[in-house]
Amino acid sequence: MSRPELTHDVRIVDTTLRDGSHAMAHQFTERQVRDTVRALDAAGVEIIEVSHGDGLGGSSFNYGFSRTDELALIRAARDEATAAQIAVLLVPGIGTADDLRRSHDAGAEMVRIATHCTEADVSCQHFGVAAGLGMETAGFLMMAHRTTPEKLAEQARVMVDAGCQTVYVTDSAGALLMRDAADRFEALVTEVGKEAWVGYHGHQNMSLGVANSVLGFEAGVRYIDGSLCALGAGAGNSPTEVLSAVFDRMGVKTGLDVTRLLDAADDVVHRYLTRWPKMDRNAIVQGWAGVYSSFLLHAEQAAERYDVPAQDILRRCGELGLVGGQEDAIIDIAVQLRSASA
Amino acid sequence: MSRPELTHDVRIVDTTLRDGSHAMAHQFTERQVRDTVRALDAAGVEIIEVSHGDGLGGSSFNYGFSRTDELALIRAARDEATAAQIAVLLVPGIGTADDLRRSHDAGAEMVRIATHCTEADVSCQHFGVAAGLGMETAGFLMMAHRTTPEKLAEQARVMVDAGCQTVYVTDSAGALLMRDAADRFEALVTEVGKEAWVGYHGHQNMSLGVANSVLGFEAGVRYIDGSLCALGAGAGNSPTEVLSAVFDRMGVKTGLDVTRLLDAADDVVHRYLTRWPKMDRNAIVQGWAGVYSSFLLHAEQAAERYDVPAQDILRRCGELGLVGGQEDAIIDIAVQLRSASA
Repeated sequence: MSRPELTHDVRIVDTTLRDGSHAMAHQFTERQVRDTVRALDAAGVEIIEVSHGDGLGGSSFNYGFSRTDELALIRAARDEATAAQIAVLLVPGIGTADDLRRSHDAGAEMVRIATHCTEADVSCQHFGVAAGLGMETAGFLMMAHRTTPEKLAEQARVMVDAGCQTVYVTDSAGALLMRDAADRFEALVTEVGKEAWVGYHGHQNMSLGVANSVLGFEAGVRYIDGSLCALGAGAGNSPTEVLSAVFDRMGVKTGLDVTRLLDAADDVVHRYLTRWPKMDRNAIVQGWAGVYSSFLLHAEQAAERYDVPAQDILRRCGELGLVGGQEDAIIDIAVQLRSASA
Repeated sequence: MSRPELTHDVRIVDTTLRDGSHAMAHQFTERQVRDTVRALDAAGVEIIEVSHGDGLGGSSFNYGFSRTDELALIRAARDEATAAQIAVLLVPGIGTADDLRRSHDAGAEMVRIATHCTEADVSCQHFGVAAGLGMETAGFLMMAHRTTPEKLAEQARVMVDAGCQTVYVTDSAGALLMRDAADRFEALVTEVGKEAWVGYHGHQNMSLGVANSVLGFEAGVRYIDGSLCALGAGAGNSPTEVLSAVFDRMGVKTGLDVTRLLDAADDVVHRYLTRWPKMDRNAIVQGWAGVYSSFLLHAEQAAERYDVPAQDILRRCGELGLVGGQEDAIIDIAVQLRSASA
């Protein structure tokens, strides 16, 4: 499957309603989704991702239950969007091929299939299913700081050979320094850049999401993620409204209306968010120690329950090299820290 | 006067108690200053700036009155610091040579003299006074996006010839894109780098303060400003705690204790700040339109008083090319916008 044509110099994908689900503890309402999609669509955003923070099927004891069935949210999003495509996230093992089919029935036209950065092979079956449904595809190589640029490029090759149209350097921990990010962008563009697009999904834990997006564009990255008010796991994602303003100042065409995005952030999202994601101690520790951003609220909850510092839990997650899907280990760590301090 | 020896690879200067004064509407108490200095000093910060946000003598109708006399705050800071130097800001025209002498009597050992980026010559007399007092000196070329790298370097030369030991690229509007910042760092290092240090003072309005600090270090910049919790004008400064974590991951020695800085931010500053500076609509507009960061609260107050949008006032400030010191024009703009909409 060939990659899609770009309508502008770079395509900004908004993940407020997916990665932002982490920061909202998965409590999005249909009303919030409708208001946000309407504002993003009017501002020219071409792809809007909507799912549980951990992707299709994420609503569970382990990851946190959604307030509203994600299929209902996807249908509502599809209903509001006049030009934008609705995308969903799928983490194989959390979501299944059947979840993907149901999301397609609900109106999703694109799927982003995410694996740990060294496990791309678990995505192949799902790329096949997506192709059969006629969906646009992207692959997320998560926790991209945990492997070398060369190995990351090999994993990107696995995804592209399975039918993936855009492969993302996914900095789930917000831990990629600028040089580390640039090396990965260059390695992927070299390996798959003739057939597929390279993407970048950043977190602000070290305040480098926007900067890495700029470096990405300069290296040939053409899909770049953001979210309004940075709403996302950890210190949040690169803010969509900031990306649009920065690229505007650079003279890079995104097709986005900066003023409308600023209004969408302040007049729509700011009004319902329960916490404005920020670089506080726990979020910075995630970037510094290389910890999966969505562990933040889980660690804070465990910290309160077991009366141990959340930053100590997060540091231990970094030492143990935990990856997405191992959220249950957070409780174990909290219990161990509690015993050790008793 | 030769430049000071560095004790580490780069010197991080903390301006929480000076640039942060803007975000606190100049309401710092002596207790807050003491607690903050103690925490910064214990974390290894070598230079701590304490003054009204607009520098010595800034407490006024035009800039906002200080709650506590800044000389009392400087004395308190000097009293708490065991190893750190206390610095003050002086904007000629707002502060005078006599203010500088009084601050030195109160314990300030360094002065940073700030002018608009094309007006370095107004600083010469004050560098002479500082030298006579035996104070370390730095020069701030403010609103550095408003002139070319070549002209900025000429202005840096004026300051260095007047006795300035470190010249700062001061991105008062948080408007410098990465390439623009790098070009200015290179121009200044080439022009004055054999005799003086080059510094960088960033704001987060476009989320690029930390990234530009990294680019600065790579270009030879050796004095870099930060503030705890980003406390500063506009979207705030590069957070000191994030700078320390990023440089730590890069293997660049700062002499800072990252964990203690994270605690200083969360356990000291976070507890007293009235607003956590963030990239909201008004702050982003400042970066996008190139507006002096400290105009933020003035514009928000005028917006409320005259019932016009703060972002419209700020955009007009950008169109008119206002610089620091022209705060009174904000009211005029608000009145005009009000008339135009009536």
